[in-house]
Amino acid sequence: MEFRSDNNAGTSPVILDAVVACNAGPAASYGNDPIMDRVRDRIRTLFEAPDAEVALVATGTAANALALATFCPPWGAIYAFEAAHAEMDECGAPEFFTGGAKIRLVPGQDGKITPEALAAKIGETGQGDVHSVQRGMVTLTNITEAGTVYSAEEVAALAGVAKRFGLPVHLDGARFANAIVATGATPAEMTWKAGVDVLSFGGTKNGCMGVEAVVIFDPARAWELALRRKRAGHLFSKHRYLSAQMGAYLDGGLWLTLARHANDMAAQLEAGLRTLPEVTFASPRGANMQFVTMPRRLHQRAMEAGANYYLMPHGTPLDGDPDERVLCRLVTSWATTEAEVDGLIEALRA
Amino acid sequence: MEFRSDNNAGTSPVILDAVVACNAGPAASYGNDPIMDRVRDRIRTLFEAPDAEVALVATGTAANALALATFCPPWGAIYAFEAAHAEMDECGAPEFFTGGAKIRLVPGQDGKITPEALAAKIGETGQGDVHSVQRGMVTLTNITEAGTVYSAEEVAALAGVAKRFGLPVHLDGARFANAIVATGATPAEMTWKAGVDVLSFGGTKNGCMGVEAVVIFDPARAWELALRRKRAGHLFSKHRYLSAQMGAYLDGGLWLTLARHANDMAAQLEAGLRTLPEVTFASPRGANMQFVTMPRRLHQRAMEAGANYYLMPHGTPLDGDPDERVLCRLVTSWATTEAEVDGLIEALRA
Amino acid sequence: MEFRSDNNAGTSPVILDAVVACNAGPAASYGNDPIMDRVRDRIRTLFEAPDAEVALVATGTAANALALATFCPPWGAIYAFEAAHAEMDECGAPEFFTGGAKIRLVPGQDGKITPEALAAKIGETGQGDVHSVQRGMVTLTNITEAGTVYSAEEVAALAGVAKRFGLPVHLDGARFANAIVATGATPAEMTWKAGVDVLSFGGTKNGCMGVEAVVIFDPARAWELALRRKRAGHLFSKHRYLSAQMGAYLDGGLWLTLARHANDMAAQLEAGLRTLPEVTFASPRGANMQFVTMPRRLHQRAMEAGANYYLMPHGTPLDGDPDERVLCRLVTSWATTEAEVDGLIEALRA
Amino acid sequence: MEFRSDNNAGTSPVILDAVVACNAGPAASYGNDPIMDRVRDRIRTLFEAPDAEVALVATGTAANALALATFCPPWGAIYAFEAAHAEMDECGAPEFFTGGAKIRLVPGQDGKITPEALAAKIGETGQGDVHSVQRGMVTLTNITEAGTVYSAEEVAALAGVAKRFGLPVHLDGARFANAIVATGATPAEMTWKAGVDVLSFGGTKNGCMGVEAVVIFDPARAWELALRRKRAGHLFSKHRYLSAQMGAYLDGGLWLTLARHANDMAAQLEAGLRTLPEVTFASPRGANMQFVTMPRRLHQRAMEAGANYYLMPHGTPLDGDPDERVLCRLVTSWATTEAEVDGLIEALRA
Repeated sequence: MEFRSDNNAGTSPVILDAVVACNAGPAASYGNDPIMDRVRDRIRTLFEAPDAEVALVATGTAANALALATFCPPWGAIYAFEAAHAEMDECGAPEFFTGGAKIRLVPGQDGKITPEALAAKIGETGQGDVHSVQRGMVTLTNITEAGTVYSAEEVAALAGVAKRFGLPVHLDGARFANAIVATGATPAEMTWKAGVDVLSFGGTKNGCMGVEAVVIFDPARAWELALRRKRAGHLFSKHRYLSAQMGAYLDGGLWLTLARHANDMAAQLEAGLRTLPEVTFASPRGANMQFVTMPRRLHQRAMEAGANYYLMPHGTPLDGDPDERVLCRLVTSWATTEAEVDGLIEALRA
Repeated sequence: MEFRSDNNAGTSPVILDAVVACNAGPAASYGNDPIMDRVRDRIRTLFEAPDAEVALVATGTAANALALATFCPPWGAIYAFEAAHAEMDECGAPEFFTGGAKIRLVPGQDGKITPEALAAKIGETGQGDVHSVQRGMVTLTNITEAGTVYSAEEVAALAGVAKRFGLPVHLDGARFANAIVATGATPAEMTWKAGVDVLSFGGTKNGCMGVEAVVIFDPARAWELALRRKRAGHLFSKHRYLSAQMGAYLDGGLWLTLARHANDMAAQLEAGLRTLPEVTFASPRGANMQFVTMPRRLHQRAMEAGANYYLMPHGTPLDGDPDERVLCRLVTSWATTEAEVDGLIEALRA
Repeated sequence: MEFRSDNNAGTSPVILDAVVACNAGPAASYGNDPIMDRVRDRIRTLFEAPDAEVALVATGTAANALALATFCPPWGAIYAFEAAHAEMDECGAPEFFTGGAKIRLVPGQDGKITPEALAAKIGETGQGDVHSVQRGMVTLTNITEAGTVYSAEEVAALAGVAKRFGLPVHLDGARFANAIVATGATPAEMTWKAGVDVLSFGGTKNGCMGVEAVVIFDPARAWELALRRKRAGHLFSKHRYLSAQMGAYLDGGLWLTLARHANDMAAQLEAGLRTLPEVTFASPRGANMQFVTMPRRLHQRAMEAGANYYLMPHGTPLDGDPDERVLCRLVTSWATTEAEVDGLIEALRA
Repeated sequence: MEFRSDNNAGTSPVILDAVVACNAGPAASYGNDPIMDRVRDRIRTLFEAPDAEVALVATGTAANALALATFCPPWGAIYAFEAAHAEMDECGAPEFFTGGAKIRLVPGQDGKITPEALAAKIGETGQGDVHSVQRGMVTLTNITEAGTVYSAEEVAALAGVAKRFGLPVHLDGARFANAIVATGATPAEMTWKAGVDVLSFGGTKNGCMGVEAVVIFDPARAWELALRRKRAGHLFSKHRYLSAQMGAYLDGGLWLTLARHANDMAAQLEAGLRTLPEVTFASPRGANMQFVTMPRRLHQRAMEAGANYYLMPHGTPLDGDPDERVLCRLVTSWATTEAEVDGLIEALRA
């Protein structure tokens, strides 16, 4: 009963097979392997963006930080949701990669910010005043840190605010596939058609071993991104193993199949949780991650039954007042089984 | 007939099997997987260093740059061979990771520097003079960029110079295994017993998919290294795949077996090359990489016969005066076959 | 009727005389001038800190950013009031100098934060969690950005929170003299006795041409500070002109005399403003800077009469609804005259 | 008998008077003072560059590092003479300000590099190869670190090499005035007409208290420079004092008058030294700095007679073999007197 994170799941057998299959014989290194050429083409087709450039890296932090550094100068403000991954969970990677840009936090509800709040925060920054950092760029996360989902229209509205101020937009898509499945938007609609300039297109959480694609829709920035990737130690010598993962991930829509399964398991879990009177949803579920509160008593029972998930914030103790409500994060993945979902609901109901 | 780089070879089947084997079921993320615990223990045993700390990353540039940044302040001078990988081939990664340290180049022969040259260069830096960068650290590469090998005694002599100036020592061991096989030194003799403080222990070039271990012999620096790794986007979420590679690499001495094969193939290649009167060694071969000059005519013949290797410097044209001597870099790997070696010699001899 | 900023005032004649006086003949450069020796001694005496080290720079931004960078690692969080100068008015200098530390904003009232709010914000940061930036340091401003003043006891309470978390404390004392005069605390009581580790001791705003002293109470950090100062281009070659300013500033308590005058003029201005029924204080005045609201009508009258001060936020238009209340910042300096104060009150009353 | 450095001289009385004169009354801060408007105009006229932008800072290190950072990306190589000030005497400021650019050293004679050597070094850098830093910019120093002078034609030849590679050119003109006097070139001929993109126009060494102008000939870069200056703490609040210095420095050609005196005194000193058979010139004198060798005996005599200058490298001991030749750096300034020159010659001759 594994609900800690989609990071804890293994690799889809299809992707693993592709990694094994690419192993035979020598291959050109540093991204010059022929699989990468096909990956690039496929991403261009998928995103209906024939000029897009693609750089593969192995971690989401690298993808995000490289994307931000390529678009935001050291004296820029990066506007992000107040609990954005880039702010909370990357140990300052955006500041490191950008050379000291400043993240300005936008308040929001259920992991989402509104165009009004974004415009207000951007407007506060003293553009043209040399004493202030300057307006740099906007970063959004979809699905959000609270497990909710922005529709393509919502992304477009937020990106529209950025464009009004002349700012580029980054989309942290560590769980991009789950958002696409949840909304039914096309990849193009969710990104460049909505005004997104650069995407972290996640693979790792959704069944890859470790690969994320930075997709830039303006190829003029590609060389700078390439240099930043190398300089940060993120250009793989045996790059074929990244290419092979991403190739298999895209092939036949596997990325959507995997995400659909994860979202479906989450929906089934939600349905079960909603039958439990002591469980309350902290935010509406959008895709494969959900946050609920319950009495510690229930939580202890689930743990004893072998369930595995995180209390929030990290470090919340297992022991304590059995009636106190604790906040639980439950994440499903491509590998979650119906038995796990049923098992958790039963354990909580018991 | 693949002699471009050990980066072009695939992954040893044993290591690939381990990657596949570790895939079943969920695993703790971010380095908390149980395989990593075993890897740490094994490295401590192998290096006879019970307090050593180990951080896995996926690229050599990351390993080197993180090691340097953990030991050298932004105002420090890093003393390196004038053609060191850190200077020539990392797009400024050491400067980026350290926050602007300065690499000071030490001249040498055949890829190696002498204690005298190192001492002279360190001595030049105006320690205690606020106008000058300060003496920071020493970085060595073994096997060297010219394919030669430092003996453990030579490393100790160079590290001794560093110690005399109170400086820490980094060893870039992208091909550490080849150096160990070539010298017969133990890992401990080649590192901390010789005065090395931090090692980039390479796996990728020697049969892994993409894994390098940063080994720190003073555990007091481990937390800073961990933070720097995360902040640079080099902490893998599905870390088990790094652990599994490194585990299999160490298991039963596979790392030595693979390197021994590469070195043996290189020796066989050298023996063949020495029978060719028109081929001259540019530097003595130490392990699995060798540099020879030959008339372009011979080189063209080898290319036509299907050989694959690099002319140096990169960009040297295939066409040109057929009698002009060109400099060829020939690298063997765990995957090189006798047939490839024989094939190249035959092609050159024809 | 100059009330824009103490930055707009000139230099006290006494200090200017000292600059002129130090000009004769050659002097040792880069801080080795004999005046600097006397300045260092005097600051040690004044602060009852015989081991304190002192580095002079010419701007407050440099003093603050160097102080922060010397005490906070790149992965550290700097806790600051949400409208702190370091956050709002230094174009990201702290991020630049530290190599990408992250300022975490503490909410407050009237420019001041409470120990509870500070403790809460520090507590939120995931110390020991590699995904999070780590707790770095605390920076306070006194007098505050809202013109209020922390007592030495309040500073001690806030620094006590920092110490509880093991964090160093910086005091941005751009208007330190005004705070000392306002509170009656000794320099020692306001700094190291309260738990402050490093002080930006301002001179520029209080009658100098351009000099600030970074005062470090732990001399072990002095060499790093010296290197950072040089590396940032803030070590003056003809350093005597900084020394001479600071020497004259300290001599005979001139720094307190100048600040007392500024505070007295502010008190007189406050007294006048309080007689005007349409003027309301936005925050209590503590020293030489005050914030009041008034109908735009009154403000326009003052401008027409030749008064000079800023509306907040910057960019608030002069024209508009005459009854709308505008927020005015009024700063007095060592150079403010009673006539200016009276003139402003008369203009507003008319 | 002061010959240590032009940094040890005081401030020209004319400039000091201007500083005193600008003190009356309030003035707009942060570069918005009316004197700065006149300075900008005057520099544009002087350089025949109506679009040039000017930023004043207080130190040469700041001027150089800001100029480099504005034109060179973090992954760029900066080509500099192997003993350039930027390499040897700024504690890594260029690396800090640029975010980790790499200085690549060009060998030379007598402080000067040749177009051939420059082209060779630029050519070595693997442009377009992602593993290598990229060609960034060229920095020249005039007068050079060896006291020699580049003619405008020589600067143009070197800048021509840079242009051929598409690179911008910086001129470190800490002693620009001395070079202009020595060569008779106009400021325009020595800079933009020769291909220089950005100049550090020195004032401090030539009679100012502490002011350097960064002159950018392409105004499109001015805003980035302004932000970098602020962010580095180099924007003065009471900026009028920088403006007043630079204004007086330019007024009536004072900058040339002061430099001419320094050069004349150096010529007179050279003439005297050439009469001493035991003194040998290490490099030809070009302006106001000269390097000679002499037996330690002579040097000791000069010291005993009250002369003051530096042995090179710094730290060469006063005591030692009296016949050993020591290398002496002798710098004259606007303040050097004939009596000092005569005194030194007499002391050496005695």
